[in-house]
Amino acid sequence: MSNSTELTTFTGWAATSAGAPLERYSYDPGPLGAEEVEVAVEYCGVCHSDQSMIDNEWGLSHYPFIPGHEVVGSIVRVGAQVRGLEVGQRVGIGWYKGSCMHCSSCIEGSHQLCSTVQPTIVGSNGGFADRLRSHWAWALAIPDGLDPAMAGPLFCAGSTVFNPLVEFDVKPTDRVGVVGIGGLGHLALRFLNAWGCEVTAFTSSLNKQDEARRLGAHNVLASTDSNALKSIAGTLDFLLVTANADLDWPAMLGTLRGKGRLHFVGVVPGAIPVHVFNLLPQQKSVSASPVGSPSNTATMLEFCARHQILPQVEHFPMSRINDAIDHLRSGKARYRVVLDASK
Amino acid sequence: MSNSTELTTFTGWAATSAGAPLERYSYDPGPLGAEEVEVAVEYCGVCHSDQSMIDNEWGLSHYPFIPGHEVVGSIVRVGAQVRGLEVGQRVGIGWYKGSCMHCSSCIEGSHQLCSTVQPTIVGSNGGFADRLRSHWAWALAIPDGLDPAMAGPLFCAGSTVFNPLVEFDVKPTDRVGVVGIGGLGHLALRFLNAWGCEVTAFTSSLNKQDEARRLGAHNVLASTDSNALKSIAGTLDFLLVTANADLDWPAMLGTLRGKGRLHFVGVVPGAIPVHVFNLLPQQKSVSASPVGSPSNTATMLEFCARHQILPQVEHFPMSRINDAIDHLRSGKARYRVVLDASK
Repeated sequence: MSNSTELTTFTGWAATSAGAPLERYSYDPGPLGAEEVEVAVEYCGVCHSDQSMIDNEWGLSHYPFIPGHEVVGSIVRVGAQVRGLEVGQRVGIGWYKGSCMHCSSCIEGSHQLCSTVQPTIVGSNGGFADRLRSHWAWALAIPDGLDPAMAGPLFCAGSTVFNPLVEFDVKPTDRVGVVGIGGLGHLALRFLNAWGCEVTAFTSSLNKQDEARRLGAHNVLASTDSNALKSIAGTLDFLLVTANADLDWPAMLGTLRGKGRLHFVGVVPGAIPVHVFNLLPQQKSVSASPVGSPSNTATMLEFCARHQILPQVEHFPMSRINDAIDHLRSGKARYRVVLDASK
Repeated sequence: MSNSTELTTFTGWAATSAGAPLERYSYDPGPLGAEEVEVAVEYCGVCHSDQSMIDNEWGLSHYPFIPGHEVVGSIVRVGAQVRGLEVGQRVGIGWYKGSCMHCSSCIEGSHQLCSTVQPTIVGSNGGFADRLRSHWAWALAIPDGLDPAMAGPLFCAGSTVFNPLVEFDVKPTDRVGVVGIGGLGHLALRFLNAWGCEVTAFTSSLNKQDEARRLGAHNVLASTDSNALKSIAGTLDFLLVTANADLDWPAMLGTLRGKGRLHFVGVVPGAIPVHVFNLLPQQKSVSASPVGSPSNTATMLEFCARHQILPQVEHFPMSRINDAIDHLRSGKARYRVVLDASK
């Protein structure tokens, strides 16, 4: 192991004001932390959350900052206290890049629930750049047999939809719905099909119907068709919402069978009106979760390697980043844009 | 085993219009069903749901009907297909008295989720009467050592608050809150203390503070004190709402730690405004459940006998039923009224 290629500035593409095109931008990363790895970025996915942060949709953005949090790259430097990783290894980094490592959440393996967990691009610079640093626990080795040019989106989109299958004990015998067939939803279909479930896709664009089946759905319904929702009332065990839109949630709850769960990983804008009478007679739950823990994400990577599950991506050179973001904004991305940092 | 004391009419106390005092009323129960037991009522608890049905609060009431669904009595007749029960046994009957026995919910032991489950007093006559019939699966033998004069409320109030501890895997190491210290809540405090948990009572009446501690709470907070709620932010694993009032639910969600659950067994009138941002970062859930299955209720009875857990009750003669209901309406019942059918 040796440390090499030290850079005094990192250079990338920054958002400078809400909604503006990204601009070339350099910053001084300071000294490498003892528990940090430094990664030379090779690929970076473009996530809907990058767009939300560029637009300051959540009121969390401080400009300028470099978005990008679905990074694949090679470790070029390691701090003195880094465990289990070495220079030259290829790793991925997702929505979070650090946590305290000693609170009850970190110690129990739920680092993503640490009260001081560090999002990669909130108050910090991300992966639309030549270099990115992360705590060693949040940089996960990419298993052999997973194409690194495609793997980036697994670290945010993938982990976010895989995590609830583990956390809420989704079973291969379950009937599971996925609402929204985009960056997250298309991976959810692939995971759930390999998981053994009966998979129903809910989409607002019925022109995605054939694609949804190809991605693993056994059934496809229009998410706004109230008759379609009624036709499957009381049948689903788990309904995973990856959409960012307000839908008819009481009708969606109606599709669940007893003990069923309506689970959100997409940040829908409005409040979800939950009446106790919609939950109580059939013991239903409503819940939400962020990206998975390092442990669950590593489990996902192993599952992906076993089943050859990768996102369906479109590549753009990093130099055409603004075209890539426009493509995402147009809703035409199928289903994830990945930037190639070498171009 | 012998069948005896056949009555051609059952006589009790019926609601005849919304909110009116109950009146003496007789009805023809028809022939005894092959899977039914007939019980001579000895005691019957008075539940908040009786009051809701008397007042037609839920739009489900058809007058006249006899309320009462926390029945203890002795079996006096059994149908030809009854399993596991015989004449002379003392049993309890709660919110439900029958289900189809063959749907997927019944077959998996979740009879309370059967789509044709029969509530004891909805479209049917209940236990403020001399006799009550139920399907054998819903009439549960009262273990030796549990005082039958006190046991009635276990079959609705008790089962309703015990059930989520089993269904959602509440652990003895958990910190659990109970909102509302009434018929349901006071039993929840007793259960959770015996369960090994750290128990926090939330009450709107701080004059119940000493009683809440005596019932098993380690801590008592005012449910409307926003500073008190903030002082325990991020600490509870499970928050059981037995109240029927609208409270500050986002603040209540704030008391939960990561992976915590806000669970309703009380039917609060308003919609609960759930924002994904209140659930997602810490993977929280909101849920609700009805009374427990026959199996979970039997487990509760065994737990009650082992720990000598019974409700705190006030006895009224059945002949003073309207005084008993007025006492309940006044909010002064501590904590459950039980009617004595022999008086």
